[in-house]
Amino acid sequence: MRITEHIRRLKGYVHGEQPSGRGVVKLNTNENAYPPSPKCAEALKRFPAAALRLYPNAESTPLRKAIAALHGTSPDNVFVGNGSDEILSLAAKVFVGDDEAIGSLDPSYSLYKTLADIRNVPWKGFREGSDVGKWNLKGVSLFLWTNPNAPTGRFVEPREIAAFAKKFPGVVIVDEAYADFARGNAMALATAPRNRNIVVMRTFSKSYSLAGLRVGYCVGPKDLIAALMKTKDSYNVDGVAQAVALAAVRDQAWKDANCRKIVLAREKCAGDLRKRGWDVPPSESNFLFARPPVGTDPEHLFQKLKEKNIFIRYFSGKLTRDRLRISIGTPREMEKFIAAIDAIQKGK
Amino acid sequence: MRITEHIRRLKGYVHGEQPSGRGVVKLNTNENAYPPSPKCAEALKRFPAAALRLYPNAESTPLRKAIAALHGTSPDNVFVGNGSDEILSLAAKVFVGDDEAIGSLDPSYSLYKTLADIRNVPWKGFREGSDVGKWNLKGVSLFLWTNPNAPTGRFVEPREIAAFAKKFPGVVIVDEAYADFARGNAMALATAPRNRNIVVMRTFSKSYSLAGLRVGYCVGPKDLIAALMKTKDSYNVDGVAQAVALAAVRDQAWKDANCRKIVLAREKCAGDLRKRGWDVPPSESNFLFARPPVGTDPEHLFQKLKEKNIFIRYFSGKLTRDRLRISIGTPREMEKFIAAIDAIQKGK
Repeated sequence: MRITEHIRRLKGYVHGEQPSGRGVVKLNTNENAYPPSPKCAEALKRFPAAALRLYPNAESTPLRKAIAALHGTSPDNVFVGNGSDEILSLAAKVFVGDDEAIGSLDPSYSLYKTLADIRNVPWKGFREGSDVGKWNLKGVSLFLWTNPNAPTGRFVEPREIAAFAKKFPGVVIVDEAYADFARGNAMALATAPRNRNIVVMRTFSKSYSLAGLRVGYCVGPKDLIAALMKTKDSYNVDGVAQAVALAAVRDQAWKDANCRKIVLAREKCAGDLRKRGWDVPPSESNFLFARPPVGTDPEHLFQKLKEKNIFIRYFSGKLTRDRLRISIGTPREMEKFIAAIDAIQKGK
Repeated sequence: MRITEHIRRLKGYVHGEQPSGRGVVKLNTNENAYPPSPKCAEALKRFPAAALRLYPNAESTPLRKAIAALHGTSPDNVFVGNGSDEILSLAAKVFVGDDEAIGSLDPSYSLYKTLADIRNVPWKGFREGSDVGKWNLKGVSLFLWTNPNAPTGRFVEPREIAAFAKKFPGVVIVDEAYADFARGNAMALATAPRNRNIVVMRTFSKSYSLAGLRVGYCVGPKDLIAALMKTKDSYNVDGVAQAVALAAVRDQAWKDANCRKIVLAREKCAGDLRKRGWDVPPSESNFLFARPPVGTDPEHLFQKLKEKNIFIRYFSGKLTRDRLRISIGTPREMEKFIAAIDAIQKGK
């Protein structure tokens, strides 16, 4: 038995396709439609390759300081990871015992279930929007609350999460990958000393346009952050990534301007789809989760769009299969998307 | 119980100090004394920052292809990680059941024990150089065999590891971080289809002078590699790191020339120390593990050198405390080191 039983059974997480090439309209993995800050480009160009012979800062100290200053907290309250993925994987080690479980909304980021499978503990999903008071949380020691949620884009008020956390004996990680596209966020909960179990997680992959860099961070109580620190790989974030992410943090204006453009394009696209009979619930993220009009099969439409080099996302799960997730691109890309839908509708 | 019991007890891995500043002679964390290939600098400068808005290649495909070609194997036999650290951490998940154990030489890389602690399984150490036939390997399902070993620099012939692996029911990872400084390596064992449980691990941190980049890889049977693939973070190696590592693989001549310089400086330093009464066992790595003459306390000497801005490494463990580990720097740095020892000896 060289490979442990539960890993042999494991299906593994399936990430969205990563097509490349000219003419591809890529609206399938929630990447930012705009490039990162020019300050990131400068940091990359200026990074002295010779310095790569040395190990990077093991604790990402300068970056943690900048993030702490941004959120008005201390670097001891900040953990930086090789993408949010690493933080999630560490959290599953640190906050979940062998006989405990991981909880999340359902539907939500499908990686959470894979994470529980890898950790060899149960995953429990709780229907999004259902009565929190009725959730059976027995055994759940880590709750991953994505807000705004994916793939739905639904935002809940942070006070609801605070009320949940107050009664929950384990750790709540609020996955705020999309918070910069929303009207609010829970960061104040993570930095408030009275809260002992709320961690807010952010990523550089979405609003900062740095998915290719793999940097995520979380903010929370010092003891929880210290536990993550103890269990991370010694040098978990490379020197280039630290430098480029630092440049991104220092250019909030660039990020904010991009987020505004994306929110505008999102609302425009939502309107365009609604005019065409789609059900488009309010989204506070950089994607829409929309149901095509009766008579249009989502999976078929997804395939047809793909044939036209337009990539969106279809999830075949019971709770998601009647909808399509459309990442918000540039206005030009969204026009192409809408035009393609119209063409497909006309049988072209 | 927000933090699991075994993590609360955990001490965590202690990495070497990372001092910086002018005049520091840094011989403490086995970094390469020379910069990476100019092709790496070029890859870094040419990397289009705008491309960072997109996710990187999730499977590091171009890099895996180049590594496979280098070793005459298939990309399906190659896994690339965020440093070898990530590979070790995944291996502890994938090849070790809850009731199994991790084995390694003793002394060896102290991270292995921490890894077992984090995984909440026992670590079993086997005295380096002792009779392999007498090792009690009961319960050990993953054996981490560092070759050349750290901190001793001792090299064993790959056929000894092959003989061990033949009888061992679990997975053997041969950690060859320092193999490019040695007279041989076990790569042929990892690529031979008849071997079902031998994985050879390499890093870009040492011979390729890219410690700051965090890229490691391993080569082994397809089923074991596939199991690591399933459990890694979706996008575990960032786009810049993939591009720079690829440039490094493509410049073998640069790496080989640096390794030759380091081996020369190593032998020179070993001779200089022996002349001064030190016990310096043969090393096949980029460091020496040497015992000062009778009457010189290693820890005291380590401290005295530090006061002179010369950083080497002292390990306080029972098997290591009579020696000092000295990473091999440039000839100029090694001269400074020897001169400092002479000065300290004279009470200066």
